[in-house]
Amino acid sequence: MQSVPAYRYEELAGFITGLVRNGTLPPGSRAPSLRQICKQRRISLSAALQAYRLLEDRGVLEARPQSGYYVRGGQVSLQLPAATKPSGKPTNVALSGMVFELLEYAADPRFVPLGCAIPSTDLLAAGRLDRFLARAARVKGAEHNTYTGPKGDLHLRQEIARRALRWGQALSSDAQHAVTQSAEAISPENIAITCGCTEALTLALKAVTRPGDTVAIESPTYFGLLHTLRALDLKVLELPTDATNGVDLSALERALEGGGIAACLFSSSFNNPLGCTMPTQNKLVVLDLLSKHDVPLIEDDIYGDIHFGEQRPPPFIALDRAGNTLYCSSFSKTIAPGYRIGWIAAGRYMRKVLEHKFALTLCGPGLPQLALADFLSSGSYDSHLRRIRRAFASNMEQTLRTIQDSFPKGTRASRPAGGFVLWLELPKSIKTSELFRAALDNGICFAPGPVFSTTGRYSHCMRISCGHNWHPRIEKGLRTLGALASAASPRK
Amino acid sequence: MQSVPAYRYEELAGFITGLVRNGTLPPGSRAPSLRQICKQRRISLSAALQAYRLLEDRGVLEARPQSGYYVRGGQVSLQLPAATKPSGKPTNVALSGMVFELLEYAADPRFVPLGCAIPSTDLLAAGRLDRFLARAARVKGAEHNTYTGPKGDLHLRQEIARRALRWGQALSSDAQHAVTQSAEAISPENIAITCGCTEALTLALKAVTRPGDTVAIESPTYFGLLHTLRALDLKVLELPTDATNGVDLSALERALEGGGIAACLFSSSFNNPLGCTMPTQNKLVVLDLLSKHDVPLIEDDIYGDIHFGEQRPPPFIALDRAGNTLYCSSFSKTIAPGYRIGWIAAGRYMRKVLEHKFALTLCGPGLPQLALADFLSSGSYDSHLRRIRRAFASNMEQTLRTIQDSFPKGTRASRPAGGFVLWLELPKSIKTSELFRAALDNGICFAPGPVFSTTGRYSHCMRISCGHNWHPRIEKGLRTLGALASAASPRK
Repeated sequence: MQSVPAYRYEELAGFITGLVRNGTLPPGSRAPSLRQICKQRRISLSAALQAYRLLEDRGVLEARPQSGYYVRGGQVSLQLPAATKPSGKPTNVALSGMVFELLEYAADPRFVPLGCAIPSTDLLAAGRLDRFLARAARVKGAEHNTYTGPKGDLHLRQEIARRALRWGQALSSDAQHAVTQSAEAISPENIAITCGCTEALTLALKAVTRPGDTVAIESPTYFGLLHTLRALDLKVLELPTDATNGVDLSALERALEGGGIAACLFSSSFNNPLGCTMPTQNKLVVLDLLSKHDVPLIEDDIYGDIHFGEQRPPPFIALDRAGNTLYCSSFSKTIAPGYRIGWIAAGRYMRKVLEHKFALTLCGPGLPQLALADFLSSGSYDSHLRRIRRAFASNMEQTLRTIQDSFPKGTRASRPAGGFVLWLELPKSIKTSELFRAALDNGICFAPGPVFSTTGRYSHCMRISCGHNWHPRIEKGLRTLGALASAASPRK
Repeated sequence: MQSVPAYRYEELAGFITGLVRNGTLPPGSRAPSLRQICKQRRISLSAALQAYRLLEDRGVLEARPQSGYYVRGGQVSLQLPAATKPSGKPTNVALSGMVFELLEYAADPRFVPLGCAIPSTDLLAAGRLDRFLARAARVKGAEHNTYTGPKGDLHLRQEIARRALRWGQALSSDAQHAVTQSAEAISPENIAITCGCTEALTLALKAVTRPGDTVAIESPTYFGLLHTLRALDLKVLELPTDATNGVDLSALERALEGGGIAACLFSSSFNNPLGCTMPTQNKLVVLDLLSKHDVPLIEDDIYGDIHFGEQRPPPFIALDRAGNTLYCSSFSKTIAPGYRIGWIAAGRYMRKVLEHKFALTLCGPGLPQLALADFLSSGSYDSHLRRIRRAFASNMEQTLRTIQDSFPKGTRASRPAGGFVLWLELPKSIKTSELFRAALDNGICFAPGPVFSTTGRYSHCMRISCGHNWHPRIEKGLRTLGALASAASPRK
């Protein structure tokens, strides 16, 4: 496997971003001219232009006609959300009745779409994939009109394994020595194709828990996961989680030492809804702790490919020497929510995973898997990912600026380094479940905080999706939402 | 909704079959000439010819050159399998290790395919459906690159509901008065699309049971169902079942009176592996019993569309006045195993079904659902069904004759009125698990009896699939299998 060439323009964008962050280029200052930078960095004019446009998309630079590029003033200065402090006791999963309402309104195109973590179809632009599906149906339909094995299409599993080989290559030398060969953990034989990440998580949980067991999770967490945990008759322990660094390691250690944790289920990167990414060093600590207590880790890496920085953060499985990780992901956030293709790599738990796959859904449809395999092997996915990463980063930046402008004072916002959801903490007196009603009345949908916890927490929090291309309608919706929140705030 | 016109040629075929069955036309006798029958029955020559060819396919008549059609001699005279007598106690589900081996060999084209209940792709000939998928991908891919709701595509649900309207229309007046409006029980709003019948059964079971509950089932039963029951931590009570009439009603009554049955799960028609179809009057008794004891019925109607007789046997849900039935089916046995599209109609349990669908797999892929909806609304499905019914009936007849010729004396065989699997009971001393090894060594795969029970029963039984077009290779495989069985029999 060759090392992946970093794109020159991405390198340059990272370099300039660094200069802005460390104050070398303060807000309002003029960025080096394209000519200057080409000379300094030995880069082509077209690559430099591409880098500057990327930085424009990301809201780092702005172009002023006849004058060049300037560092944008008014950088977002919203405070980060406070670290969460859930109860610390295993609980049965009580679900918010608002979830099904949220799903209904979030799918209704009449509402401004800040509710669901689904990228818009025009932003995904998956026409090339659809053409591969049309061809697979025409050319290979007859041959594939049968059940795949429980693992799914081999060609797709090979493509997934091939991509996973890249993970961890860019780790610091500190972490590098700890990296197992991803090639082994994520070989085609160790992968099963699933009905999205949801089924991957279902199978992982079925493989390592029994009804009544307790699973430790991040708090807040994706509401769908809470439904899965309840459907499988599991209890949850919500762990304190920080919007930047993820799960609190000492809280995790205390929980493990207390015993009774059957499994942990954490996000790899840019978690939903908090946006946190555990630093690699913390991931290594988590893996050591879990290995010591012989507790398996289920990791959800569904957002991993949507990193705004140059490197994909390594998932747990790429760092796991103990073979203790069940890795779950899907293509739903990056290319094809409509195809429902996810996957799981489960190592020594694979046999159990496959037994449950056979028992619960037998196997998935073959032709969409063939089409996705063809799409991946065509090389189109990488350029596609570069495009949507830029779009999501830009949407998120614009959303944050608009929130800063229009939400009540004291609003805090996450600053994820990837994905496309933001977590907001409003002044404590604002009930986002009430704000949800008011927003719906104004044709706006968002996800109220309480759906992300099983204990009714986060009543003053909300999740905002940035999965649609920035558009005046979205900006207007956000401003209206900010005004409604301000109206509900006693500080108004 | 108009009553569906019965095809004249099918009517005629039924009429002639009746004459053969009641002895009016004994084996070896000459059937009425085409000219005679056209005059007598006021039917066109082409329709009469079509009827006689159908009867030839079914092995009822044979054409003798220059002489006309004769009733075939040597009708299959194998005895039917004895009614089963399982233990009568709820048990945990113990699984046969042979299942995964069976699945592996059954999918291997090097083996004569008598093992798995999957129709061959050439027999299904689903090219028209694939073209609808290619078109859906090209034309509607962008629009549908998002999650469907948990119920799935509305257009497909409408097509399914439209077809279900026909059920029960051909019931005798006795049963007719008891028939509820299928239109209500199977309306588009009361249907959820699933990942095959397997997921439909999973969701039905999750909706009406808790871990540790007992579910009453037919014995023998489809091995995949046993895996599902175990994956959901359920116990089973295997009920005595007859190869013609299905579950023993008094045994069911005793079990219900004993209490502790959380749900019953029965086939609607042509069950796998026994081939039984409960008579409509028995179905009405079952529904009354279950309603009296407030026990829900999950019905598996996956083979219902493959009826060899003129009428589709009514499923339980078409007879259920109490709204106590969760109906499960799929298109996997009739047109597209590779599409993985099944469905559930769950009435008052629908909300729970949808909660579990959301929790376990979220939703299925949209484009295959669109394609199937287009295929159904094009009207192609009915002619397709007529074609495959003829093919399966003919395969089954040929298979039975070959078994009669080549299997050991004392072999009994089911005589299903639909579907495409046969259940054989060999002389008791023959262990089909040993025969399975010997058959594999000879390049032949079949399904050994013990995989169809959780208690190791049916060690001298086997299931033979007739899902492939009749072919010398299949006939030779069957004869070899018969010889191997005879060699294993002490009566040889």
